[in-house]
Amino acid sequence: MTGARIPNNHPRAESLRLREKLADSFVEGVVAVSGLIAHGRGEAFDYILGEKTSKPALRAIEAAAAALLTAESPVISVNGNTAALAAEEVVKLSDTTASKIEVNLFYRSFERELAIKKLLEKAGAKEVLGVGKDASAKIPELRSQRRRVDPKGILVADLVMVPLEDGDRTEALIKMGKRVIAVDLNPLSRTAQKATITIVDNIVRCAPKLIETAEKLKEQSNEERVRILEDFDNRENLAHSIVLMKKRLEKLAQKTCRRGRERCDH
Amino acid sequence: MTGARIPNNHPRAESLRLREKLADSFVEGVVAVSGLIAHGRGEAFDYILGEKTSKPALRAIEAAAAALLTAESPVISVNGNTAALAAEEVVKLSDTTASKIEVNLFYRSFERELAIKKLLEKAGAKEVLGVGKDASAKIPELRSQRRRVDPKGILVADLVMVPLEDGDRTEALIKMGKRVIAVDLNPLSRTAQKATITIVDNIVRCAPKLIETAEKLKEQSNEERVRILEDFDNRENLAHSIVLMKKRLEKLAQKTCRRGRERCDH
Repeated sequence: MTGARIPNNHPRAESLRLREKLADSFVEGVVAVSGLIAHGRGEAFDYILGEKTSKPALRAIEAAAAALLTAESPVISVNGNTAALAAEEVVKLSDTTASKIEVNLFYRSFERELAIKKLLEKAGAKEVLGVGKDASAKIPELRSQRRRVDPKGILVADLVMVPLEDGDRTEALIKMGKRVIAVDLNPLSRTAQKATITIVDNIVRCAPKLIETAEKLKEQSNEERVRILEDFDNRENLAHSIVLMKKRLEKLAQKTCRRGRERCDH
Repeated sequence: MTGARIPNNHPRAESLRLREKLADSFVEGVVAVSGLIAHGRGEAFDYILGEKTSKPALRAIEAAAAALLTAESPVISVNGNTAALAAEEVVKLSDTTASKIEVNLFYRSFERELAIKKLLEKAGAKEVLGVGKDASAKIPELRSQRRRVDPKGILVADLVMVPLEDGDRTEALIKMGKRVIAVDLNPLSRTAQKATITIVDNIVRCAPKLIETAEKLKEQSNEERVRILEDFDNRENLAHSIVLMKKRLEKLAQKTCRRGRERCDH
């Protein structure tokens, strides 16, 4: 996969470039096998969403920025796919919102933790929690290696951002009384449905927008940030994302049909 | 990933088992990195389709069986994902329909070709075309390694079945005057849209049904098989699959919304 050239005029060049980035990061030991499959799922949902940031995504981004800025001790949880696609954005967001960064993997291995830590440090991170013995605490109700968290990070956080989550951790964190921000292209996933705020968007598109929005909201009053949070309804917003996908499919079905014979009648 | 136990009562146990099978086959050198990502895309579309064989899929399966039985020299083209998920079904289908089997890969390597050939032979295949120097012919208009085909197989075939195709080969084959049967969970893909007959279904679900249908149609007259083919409209059928996905999303949006506050109003 590595080294193949993607022509700029390819209609889906950006998506193909991300795919290559993931494949390269897999070879470098940052991304797991399951991360590659998860990326494929994301690709499919992004395609249906039209590969652009939707209005519901923008509303969730605003709420997420407000939540990160009003939290006492926010933590951004980073897995292989997030590190591969958005290491620099994670570091910038952590700086802007005074959030800690913690590595947390479904399939934990010290080598992979170190590879991700290095990638984050190369992107400017000063502190990366959750690597090796630092993940000495355990959160209840989880069977995967994700239960192992840093006592200075996720364990004591009141808000955890989990981009590209692939598992059942969101529910466990919510049950522990934490608020959760998810970034998930699948609005139907358990993570998307259980999170406090779900951004249904590609991490590479929404991360820069989230940083920008956080920078703007920092200039506003705390009352304004709280008002944004109170106005936000995640269920309603998720339903809007699903409706968007439905409308896209409606258009694509009509297009497919028009190219065929005239007897389409659904 | 290997060795993890999936509980039988998991609501998506079958999907998780296939995911493991793919991951194991990757480790064994049968599946490529791009194949893992492609599998993830398939998972997403299958989820939206409700993970069952739809009526449009059944219609396409019937047409595909008729096409394989009426073709002069049909070939089933096998890539890593198809071998990993349905080697035995490919062999059975090849026996029932007197189709040849040819290995054809986007990312060609002799090791991978051999691993796939072995898997097919273990499943009972007597002849596997397209491995190593046997793929000495080239089909025009393709830049990937897929252009290399066997002069005894795809080159002279009048019908090529391409399950889990991930590329632009379908169009090239159609331009060469061949008929193409695709198995693709994404009804919007270029492959799905360009093929003569597109089965929008999971290969593990549709392959046994295709074998069964071919066995039944073998007992019928050739006129009956030709009638089935003439009655089949791939565009219309594809549009029905897209409409099905749309309807599923509609229901899921309503469900999401009902769980939230009452102000959903799309």
